[in-house]
Amino acid sequence: MPRYKLTLEYDGTPFVGWQRQDGQMSVQGRLAQAIKDFSGEDAMPGGAGRTDAGVHAIGQVAHVDLERDWAPAKIRDAINAQLRPEPISVLDCEQVPDGFDARFSAKARHYLYRVVDRRSPLALERGRAWGVFKPLNAKAMHDAAQGLIGHHDFTTFRSTECQAASPEKTLDRLEVSRHGEIVRIEASARSFLHNQVRSMVGSLKLVGEGRWTSGDLKKALETKDRAACGPVAPPQGLYLVKVDY
Amino acid sequence: MPRYKLTLEYDGTPFVGWQRQDGQMSVQGRLAQAIKDFSGEDAMPGGAGRTDAGVHAIGQVAHVDLERDWAPAKIRDAINAQLRPEPISVLDCEQVPDGFDARFSAKARHYLYRVVDRRSPLALERGRAWGVFKPLNAKAMHDAAQGLIGHHDFTTFRSTECQAASPEKTLDRLEVSRHGEIVRIEASARSFLHNQVRSMVGSLKLVGEGRWTSGDLKKALETKDRAACGPVAPPQGLYLVKVDY
Repeated sequence: MPRYKLTLEYDGTPFVGWQRQDGQMSVQGRLAQAIKDFSGEDAMPGGAGRTDAGVHAIGQVAHVDLERDWAPAKIRDAINAQLRPEPISVLDCEQVPDGFDARFSAKARHYLYRVVDRRSPLALERGRAWGVFKPLNAKAMHDAAQGLIGHHDFTTFRSTECQAASPEKTLDRLEVSRHGEIVRIEASARSFLHNQVRSMVGSLKLVGEGRWTSGDLKKALETKDRAACGPVAPPQGLYLVKVDY
Repeated sequence: MPRYKLTLEYDGTPFVGWQRQDGQMSVQGRLAQAIKDFSGEDAMPGGAGRTDAGVHAIGQVAHVDLERDWAPAKIRDAINAQLRPEPISVLDCEQVPDGFDARFSAKARHYLYRVVDRRSPLALERGRAWGVFKPLNAKAMHDAAQGLIGHHDFTTFRSTECQAASPEKTLDRLEVSRHGEIVRIEASARSFLHNQVRSMVGSLKLVGEGRWTSGDLKKALETKDRAACGPVAPPQGLYLVKVDY
């Protein structure tokens, strides 16, 4: 039974998130339906990251097993044809060894969080970024972010609904940079806790506004208490960019 | 009676275009409503460019006269508050001399056309770019585009509904560049004919696909016949970027 790796782009706006939920439109469920519509097979794709409602993907990865040995390009085009008009696109399909698992084989996950930092409301970027109306000091955010790098207990930055066995993770990269009115926050790790990126971004915003110091952020981490986290950043600024294997 | 200059961003998707039309949602009409809602005044903003349905603006400019002498920042914020939830945003407001006219005082208009050139359908860029599924030679498009620069009769690249007195215009800039899967076409002129940018882009696509040579594009221009134009590019890739005064 051949296994296929799918690389996916989606606009998270109309979905309840990646994860299939009965009677609701999820990315996983819609993808399974498209696979069934073209192949006749019931096959549930397994994803690398369970993106929440409203969170986007530029390079989500999923694997799926099919009975038939299709040409990968044919699978890509056939799923895309069935996905219309939903904003999910299969960018790439390749056959992979049976041992490949989109979730467990992943060596690194890369997320991007986009802030538009300006006085006026968002029009073109609505649903694609977080509009923050106070001026942010991106340099201060970047400097403070470096205090989160490394192996830590990230309980402070973890959703109370997180199902991971341990709150300990190793954060490899957390870069904040300004490009005109856009502030980009790029985060990389082997894996993340539920809501970890949005929780870190929400707290970094407090640093950018001058309400928290770099020390306050570090203290929030060390407190290992969810109550110490700043308000969680909204989903529409978050993108799952790439998964390394 | 003070005159104000408004700089506007909008997502053209839900609108019938800039121009007010009875019973339809236009950018101009929605803006006039927002002005009335905050000031109580009936005032129709005049725009620099009449963008079509689905065409976006990053820096459209409009002028409007109000009885009262408001602080410009107050006008910006008050209109933005009234515009919710429509995707129109007043980026800037300033008081200008009576002689300022958004349309007639403009010295140059700058448009951007965005193509996403890839095999897979658009998800995140849907409604924000033209998805072209064949590989385009952006270099060939750029070279051919240079043949349209200068003062010409642009009848070939003019909508049959264009109301301009003359089909003669001076095109100052038409640059095509590739950035990964994105092809950007940037056009600048004092003014454009109706559908001129989308008509030029549609013909440049034929060059990019290798179906037209540079000479074919030049010949289409010189024919001065609308029938010689390639299929007009769709509105969702077009952005009014900036107007110079």
